[in-house]
Amino acid sequence: MRSNTIQALDTGLTAALQARIDGKTKPPGSLGRLETLALQLGLIQNTLTPRLAKPHILVCAGDHGAAKAGVSAYPQDVTWQMVENFLAGGAAINALARTAGMALTVVDAGVNHDFGVRPGLIDAKVAPGTANYLEGPAMSAAQRDAAIAHGGKIVHALANDGCNVLGFGEMGIGNTASASLITHCLTGAPLAACVGRGTGLDDAGLERKRMLLAQALPRYLGAHDDAPAVLAQFGGFEIAMLAGAMLVAAERRMLLLIDGFIVTAALLVAARLSPAILGYCVFAHRSDEAGHAVQLDHLGAEPLLQLGMRLGEGTGAALAYPLVAAAAAFLDEMASFESAGVSNKA
Amino acid sequence: MRSNTIQALDTGLTAALQARIDGKTKPPGSLGRLETLALQLGLIQNTLTPRLAKPHILVCAGDHGAAKAGVSAYPQDVTWQMVENFLAGGAAINALARTAGMALTVVDAGVNHDFGVRPGLIDAKVAPGTANYLEGPAMSAAQRDAAIAHGGKIVHALANDGCNVLGFGEMGIGNTASASLITHCLTGAPLAACVGRGTGLDDAGLERKRMLLAQALPRYLGAHDDAPAVLAQFGGFEIAMLAGAMLVAAERRMLLLIDGFIVTAALLVAARLSPAILGYCVFAHRSDEAGHAVQLDHLGAEPLLQLGMRLGEGTGAALAYPLVAAAAAFLDEMASFESAGVSNKA
Repeated sequence: MRSNTIQALDTGLTAALQARIDGKTKPPGSLGRLETLALQLGLIQNTLTPRLAKPHILVCAGDHGAAKAGVSAYPQDVTWQMVENFLAGGAAINALARTAGMALTVVDAGVNHDFGVRPGLIDAKVAPGTANYLEGPAMSAAQRDAAIAHGGKIVHALANDGCNVLGFGEMGIGNTASASLITHCLTGAPLAACVGRGTGLDDAGLERKRMLLAQALPRYLGAHDDAPAVLAQFGGFEIAMLAGAMLVAAERRMLLLIDGFIVTAALLVAARLSPAILGYCVFAHRSDEAGHAVQLDHLGAEPLLQLGMRLGEGTGAALAYPLVAAAAAFLDEMASFESAGVSNKA
Repeated sequence: MRSNTIQALDTGLTAALQARIDGKTKPPGSLGRLETLALQLGLIQNTLTPRLAKPHILVCAGDHGAAKAGVSAYPQDVTWQMVENFLAGGAAINALARTAGMALTVVDAGVNHDFGVRPGLIDAKVAPGTANYLEGPAMSAAQRDAAIAHGGKIVHALANDGCNVLGFGEMGIGNTASASLITHCLTGAPLAACVGRGTGLDDAGLERKRMLLAQALPRYLGAHDDAPAVLAQFGGFEIAMLAGAMLVAAERRMLLLIDGFIVTAALLVAARLSPAILGYCVFAHRSDEAGHAVQLDHLGAEPLLQLGMRLGEGTGAALAYPLVAAAAAFLDEMASFESAGVSNKA
């Protein structure tokens, strides 16, 4: 596994940043969470004048061996079909990233399909889908480490290009099941609380998913808090790649926009390896997928948005970005009481 | 008073719009409130292909005679000073409207200051501030009607220019007090529940504000549900102008982005005159100002955002606009399962 080089946020600038925020022409605290965001952004960039640059969404896609067992409402082919849809610009994340003014990179982390060389698609395929964790580990340690390393490499390239705010998204039929198992192991919450309807299972489908995952669980004999081992046992390649991408994003002092359930499962892994990563994270939205609340409670995180969404792809991250942009803008552009000649509180 | 020509939303297109939304490449319902927004936008524009055009924030400013009695933490001069700040581009709403890609119009509805002729400022001054409602009615019926009419005129001009989405904002030292009295009368909630800290009163200041408003209340002898009379008794010119602006915005089939406590007080007046207006409204955010929850409960409204904000100026409306834009974008730009060749649910 990689060595940890994420710096804990230096809070030395907190007082100066807070004074700058409080000096703006508004009652103190009246911009609520935008003020917290502005402070966090200043600490991440370690400056009183933070700026957002080249906002980006990174979507990693992968297939899951367990999908064949029937843990999803959709057939496995939807993974590659949706990647094609991303490349054609027709998916939700395309529309939402465009609206937010964010660039989009799609990564084949391990889809069971041969895309060939395609503009807009990064080929980081570890294998054409994971193995079925109902029968054995989803991936080998070497595959896991390759996925993590490739995620990091992609983010280094984005950082070298000037990107300092990165939203994470995913696609993979069956990956809520994988995220449920990871969440159960790394949070200690009961498995049933970590399992939800995914893309829309009915009651019978949910029951079957719970049953299958309960069967998968005892096949793992390692420690539940051994994040790399849990990741190899139950992970998807897209989840491993996202974890690696997140670790480097924080190392490069980006602001990380964390999407919903699957992305937060990847963060659980990354945060176990490097707890300092959490200082760089903004939780975009509260997903309707049941297990997301378990993850958020575990991390003590309160997302910016709660819109009843449960789509993934990074759609929540794209919707939250304008709030981060607004926070950066008020800190950068607003006048102070002094500069504007506005009387302060009596 | 004006005649009511707001059309109730025709729900004839509901099924066709919902089918279009459900046909997009995502699990049904997985975009949560974005889907509700897309449906509402289609109904407002009465088309399966709604488009947003020339998004705009309208900020009305006015002074309050009661401010002299000490209902605010800030001196009355802050109203005109903040209008100058708007014109110079240094206020929160300037930064947030810019970030959201919205144009901004500032209106002097009745500020106690002579601005002269200024680019970017609409002079709709009814009088240099209202009278003090602790002594008598804040405005005459003629002044109220002039403010309402002028608000409507401004919105007609915006609509003629092609704007179809309008956020509302305000500035006026003392106007949370005015909004509290209006909210109490029009919702029937206890006065104390309608009174909050405004720009940041401490406990003693809040107590004093509650006491003063309790003294102002019995000076009004009319019916509590007579919205025009309540507005004249306790209103600000900016509140009356906003009510008039909202009525015409709905008449012209715009989408109305409702900000926080003061803007919602104006909506309470408008909705009493024309309940059909509510079909055109999107509630932007849940303000931290205490009385806003009372208003939202009364209207059965659930805002998009809850960010602990309490600034006014239309800042919540500017933050919510990107969500509306995202809703319009997914409906317009996303592929369908059929067009993208993606397999639907098994």
